[in-house]
Amino acid sequence: MSEVWLPSLKTDTPQDGFDLAVQLARKGVGYTQPDENVRKSLRSGYANDADSLTFASQVIAIHFQTVAAANDYWK
Amino acid sequence: MSEVWLPSLKTDTPQDGFDLAVQLARKGVGYTQPDENVRKSLRSGYANDADSLTFASQVIAIHFQTVAAANDYWK
Amino acid sequence: MSEVWLPSLKTDTPQDGFDLAVQLARKGVGYTQPDENVRKSLRSGYANDADSLTFASQVIAIHFQTVAAANDYWK
Amino acid sequence: MSEVWLPSLKTDTPQDGFDLAVQLARKGVGYTQPDENVRKSLRSGYANDADSLTFASQVIAIHFQTVAAANDYWK
Amino acid sequence: MSEVWLPSLKTDTPQDGFDLAVQLARKGVGYTQPDENVRKSLRSGYANDADSLTFASQVIAIHFQTVAAANDYWK
Amino acid sequence: MSEVWLPSLKTDTPQDGFDLAVQLARKGVGYTQPDENVRKSLRSGYANDADSLTFASQVIAIHFQTVAAANDYWK
Repeated sequence: MSEVWLPSLKTDTPQDGFDLAVQLARKGVGYTQPDENVRKSLRSGYANDADSLTFASQVIAIHFQTVAAANDYWK
Repeated sequence: MSEVWLPSLKTDTPQDGFDLAVQLARKGVGYTQPDENVRKSLRSGYANDADSLTFASQVIAIHFQTVAAANDYWK
Repeated sequence: MSEVWLPSLKTDTPQDGFDLAVQLARKGVGYTQPDENVRKSLRSGYANDADSLTFASQVIAIHFQTVAAANDYWK
Repeated sequence: MSEVWLPSLKTDTPQDGFDLAVQLARKGVGYTQPDENVRKSLRSGYANDADSLTFASQVIAIHFQTVAAANDYWK
Repeated sequence: MSEVWLPSLKTDTPQDGFDLAVQLARKGVGYTQPDENVRKSLRSGYANDADSLTFASQVIAIHFQTVAAANDYWK
Repeated sequence: MSEVWLPSLKTDTPQDGFDLAVQLARKGVGYTQPDENVRKSLRSGYANDADSLTFASQVIAIHFQTVAAANDYWK
């Protein structure tokens, strides 16, 4: 993972910040399971399990706190 | 998801902020499971499971922290 | 849910703030399962499960962080 | 629960603050299961389950964040 | 637990702060299960379960947020 | 663990900060299960379980909040 994928936490809009939070949550998974094919094979399972979806949403929420603070809440 | 659904974190009242937190929690789910029909089919299950409901409430709570901070707690 | 149930995050005392945190946690559940009868029927189950109780306590804790910050920790 | 149990978030020492965090975590449980006998009967189960203990510790940790901030980290 | 185990949240280095976070997480467990022998008997189980280890790591992470803030991030 | 592994929370870039958050999450596991061989043997299990991966991602997210704050969000 030597390429630059996170040059900044600044985004133009709150919605872009939410997209970044989604990306950060996925990167966290990617660090533990670097094989994209394995991750894809798991997706069909958790994308059809309500608690798994809530869990994924929660990690996004935590990252969104960080991104929002970094952007001073786009005030 | 190219439409604008999150123009701002500012809301007029704390209650509107809570509504926004609910929306953010659902959006987080939508990013992982974009198929609305699948999400609806899962709802009957988790809406009748106490821990699933608590879990959903928790994600709302995390987003509400962000929204409340963004609005300086509506002081 | 058009009635006003959250006019402010300000409370007179820390204890009132804790009560508000409890209310917020329950509201989060109510948004996902609006049927009060279903929620009551679930209560007998999770109120007798230690982890479910801890989980409910955790969501209260998260909301209490928000309420406490909104009240400048009642300093 | 009309008696005053939380007059303030201020404590003299960090350790007293940790004790208060423990109390807050337990109060959160008490709001959901007010029957002390039921809570005691559940204790033997979760006090012997590693994940349940970690979970209880986590709720304390969340409240300790709040109490510590309220005391400006006892600086 | 009348002895003083938490005189301060200040540490000399970030690493000492991480050690303190570990100690706080364990203390939270100790409040719920004061019997050290029981805690030791549980350790062999959760120390070999990946999710239990992640859970323990999470509680440390939450306490580390508190300790880091108390030390102004050792800036 | 007497060697210095955490001299500072400062990083040059947000991406380096994310790497540090990953390291902190793993250290938290290492404190509970110091045997590297055991940790490696567990990895094949949780790296193929969607919820375990989400869980690992969540702990990274919590640490990233701390690291980001320590770096003033790399503003």
